[in-house]
Amino acid sequence: MNAAVAPARRPIHPPPIPASPLPYHPGSLLSVDDLTLDDVSRILARAQALEGEDPLKRARILAKRRVALLFYESSTRTRTSFELAAKSLGADTTLVSSLSSSIEKGESLKDTGLTIKALGAETIILRHANSGAPWLLEESTRLPILNAGDGMHEHPTQALLDLRTLLAHLKPGATSVNKETLTGVTVTIVGDILHSRVARSNMMLLPRLGARVLLCGPKELLPEVAAQTVSGVAIERDFEAALRQSTAVMMLRIQAERLAGLQLDLEEYKAGYQLTGERLRDYAPQALVLHPGPIIRGLELTAGAADGPQSVIVEQVRHGVAIRMAVVERALTARQNGSRA
Amino acid sequence: MNAAVAPARRPIHPPPIPASPLPYHPGSLLSVDDLTLDDVSRILARAQALEGEDPLKRARILAKRRVALLFYESSTRTRTSFELAAKSLGADTTLVSSLSSSIEKGESLKDTGLTIKALGAETIILRHANSGAPWLLEESTRLPILNAGDGMHEHPTQALLDLRTLLAHLKPGATSVNKETLTGVTVTIVGDILHSRVARSNMMLLPRLGARVLLCGPKELLPEVAAQTVSGVAIERDFEAALRQSTAVMMLRIQAERLAGLQLDLEEYKAGYQLTGERLRDYAPQALVLHPGPIIRGLELTAGAADGPQSVIVEQVRHGVAIRMAVVERALTARQNGSRA
Amino acid sequence: MNAAVAPARRPIHPPPIPASPLPYHPGSLLSVDDLTLDDVSRILARAQALEGEDPLKRARILAKRRVALLFYESSTRTRTSFELAAKSLGADTTLVSSLSSSIEKGESLKDTGLTIKALGAETIILRHANSGAPWLLEESTRLPILNAGDGMHEHPTQALLDLRTLLAHLKPGATSVNKETLTGVTVTIVGDILHSRVARSNMMLLPRLGARVLLCGPKELLPEVAAQTVSGVAIERDFEAALRQSTAVMMLRIQAERLAGLQLDLEEYKAGYQLTGERLRDYAPQALVLHPGPIIRGLELTAGAADGPQSVIVEQVRHGVAIRMAVVERALTARQNGSRA
Repeated sequence: MNAAVAPARRPIHPPPIPASPLPYHPGSLLSVDDLTLDDVSRILARAQALEGEDPLKRARILAKRRVALLFYESSTRTRTSFELAAKSLGADTTLVSSLSSSIEKGESLKDTGLTIKALGAETIILRHANSGAPWLLEESTRLPILNAGDGMHEHPTQALLDLRTLLAHLKPGATSVNKETLTGVTVTIVGDILHSRVARSNMMLLPRLGARVLLCGPKELLPEVAAQTVSGVAIERDFEAALRQSTAVMMLRIQAERLAGLQLDLEEYKAGYQLTGERLRDYAPQALVLHPGPIIRGLELTAGAADGPQSVIVEQVRHGVAIRMAVVERALTARQNGSRA
Repeated sequence: MNAAVAPARRPIHPPPIPASPLPYHPGSLLSVDDLTLDDVSRILARAQALEGEDPLKRARILAKRRVALLFYESSTRTRTSFELAAKSLGADTTLVSSLSSSIEKGESLKDTGLTIKALGAETIILRHANSGAPWLLEESTRLPILNAGDGMHEHPTQALLDLRTLLAHLKPGATSVNKETLTGVTVTIVGDILHSRVARSNMMLLPRLGARVLLCGPKELLPEVAAQTVSGVAIERDFEAALRQSTAVMMLRIQAERLAGLQLDLEEYKAGYQLTGERLRDYAPQALVLHPGPIIRGLELTAGAADGPQSVIVEQVRHGVAIRMAVVERALTARQNGSRA
Repeated sequence: MNAAVAPARRPIHPPPIPASPLPYHPGSLLSVDDLTLDDVSRILARAQALEGEDPLKRARILAKRRVALLFYESSTRTRTSFELAAKSLGADTTLVSSLSSSIEKGESLKDTGLTIKALGAETIILRHANSGAPWLLEESTRLPILNAGDGMHEHPTQALLDLRTLLAHLKPGATSVNKETLTGVTVTIVGDILHSRVARSNMMLLPRLGARVLLCGPKELLPEVAAQTVSGVAIERDFEAALRQSTAVMMLRIQAERLAGLQLDLEEYKAGYQLTGERLRDYAPQALVLHPGPIIRGLELTAGAADGPQSVIVEQVRHGVAIRMAVVERALTARQNGSRA
């Protein structure tokens, strides 16, 4: 049902843990590469069904099941989105965050995971600063693990909600995806590609559906090597040239302090890569505008771009809750019948 | 159903956002001035009914509805009170606090609000350090917003729970209020009036029911202008003279560091304005003692006053949960049928 | 039903509050000394029944009852364990922690307790840095209080879960305990006995069931006086000699900074007291290995000991949830029919 991890398809960084013949839980979602396109179709269909379900009926689906959120980095939208998704299905949720836990006392991820499992958690949603942490957690707990962002590596539910948002506009009514679903579609990802797990998960998923991905940004944030190993991904450093080709443009958050560390001038960056209402109007008047949030107005994009009619930023958040309902349900209902290797 | 905001009645500070013809949500509670006395009566009656309701039946009223708490300042009692109120009615609650969220990453209130709405929240309970923040949040989200304290401006549910506490003692059995309900009643508010949203909301509400409000404190904490524009409100700087006239005395929290900043001597302050058991006995042996909490014993009042038979401080907390049940229910059931202007 | 506090049996420290004739709530669990062996038997039996109960049926037992967690120290496992236990029984839980509350504004424990009670809490689970705090909280609120760790004093639910873990292995199937249940059993507690509430609660409980308790550690962490007043407790400073006599060995967490403060050399400590796979194999190949967590691998024990077949550390966590279900249920169902004096 689930394809083995295929290292050759992972862009930029080596896989954090070598592809492994070890069995792991079919309810886990560690990487978008865990999912066949059939899996993706099932998740999208289930998200749609669950979103439309009566709230009281929906609350019986996972009634009193136990979902733990283990967050080593702070987060509003991802944490709240998963939490509301799990509660919508009737599950009890527990948040363990680095702010109020023995995480700070130096306990290892393995031991924290084993503890959370012994406390009764049936799945763990993990956000961690280290790439690969979800694999370690799954290996030690053998629970279904949902990767809610691991370092600069992956953020698979973000890629799924981005896909759902794109499909809602580009293929309304589509109930499944295949390798040609996004043929002819160009998605441009702009900004700090190097540090972005959102970019990585999208770069790994979208080309499998036939989309072309353009990466756009200065060399410091987008090394030449980024696009080399991945088919369907190319670099276009001229923002306006990229916009002209874009069906959708995905802006990434810019952290001013990171630019400073890289000796990048903020005003120069904005001159080159800020998405403004004018740029949209002049170069991509039909393109969808996406952003994983939180957005900083006046930095990576202006209010004109964020609030304009092409923006689907708020929709992304809504789609995220439905996607997370589907993957939490999948985690708690997948049957563990042996190895995936 | 709801009166337009009447700027002339707002004491001390100008309204944070000019009174506006924009429609806004009839389930919102941003200011006590949003409420007609009929609205107040309905909330008081509903609080009483909900408090007496069977817990299991009560939990069906808002079953699986979604309530978000957005707290930019820390709080125990207000946050917990709203949270328990919402859960009592069966709602799912989610807390977003500045301690563990992208609030710190510089996202604007508007964008955080839009995100929380897109996550599925049907109402947002907001505490914010800036006066007027709830208006901004309502304008951007168009959700019913409950003001849980905005800067030095307002704290409307506190005024409602204070009113409920007063009525329980002064008019037991009253099921509605009108402009003469508190005729003959004098409520003295003591301490740091200048910085107190609790004082403001009470000064705006109580005189509408016929009460006289006395403000008491040194000039640094109570500028002469405070009472000028509001009918029914007067200043009495002599604490003992004020006590002699009081049906109820509402002590505000004193922050020692704030006094220091104002070059006010703490011991001198206590000599002038601390509520002690002796002062109560000598000058106001019948008066009720209120305090919004948290209290600091030995500062604004002594244990003798806090724990004595005239104190209704703990009752206030209990009444607060019932009031918040009523306003959360109102937020989620009010019909949005056009402008209030 | 509950024995009065017997000061003579409290080891090391004097009781934080003198044994008192005041009535207190029979649902409280402040000290393991509150419990008769019949009480212990009832809790163990109820834990087992509740653990095996259908989750949806279990959620009706305390449906919509209100449980507050008041945590002045951070904690993952104890807080989460109590929270999940209460939610499993259907209760609404509210967490008040020192990180996000007016606790920091200087409010007293008494006033925080009265506030939490007035908010509707029917029991308070307290963790506090001061020994004796749960007694103060009970005295001021008259609510059933569950001690989740008070300073260096007690951690009664930890002792109960340790007992449940020991019985599961040493007396499988036992449904009650008496003063001979653990006759012939030696439990060695190793490490920082001086600062450990876990050690204290175990030292107070296990000998009452016939167990022998050995304390092991250097003088700085284990003063000679520790074992003097308690029958059934002895000191054995030689770790390997202690291991040879052990049915079970309970390792305590070592805080490197505390050793440094005591001028204890960490390497020397490890040479003397670290539990390794080799030591287990050579001196206690049958002993159970317990640890209250969080464990720091490479400090008080090695991975070989933590993960080996003798380790029951993860089981302890699981047993803890069941024990806490039983004591939360006990707190909310005990009838308050007069004094215990």
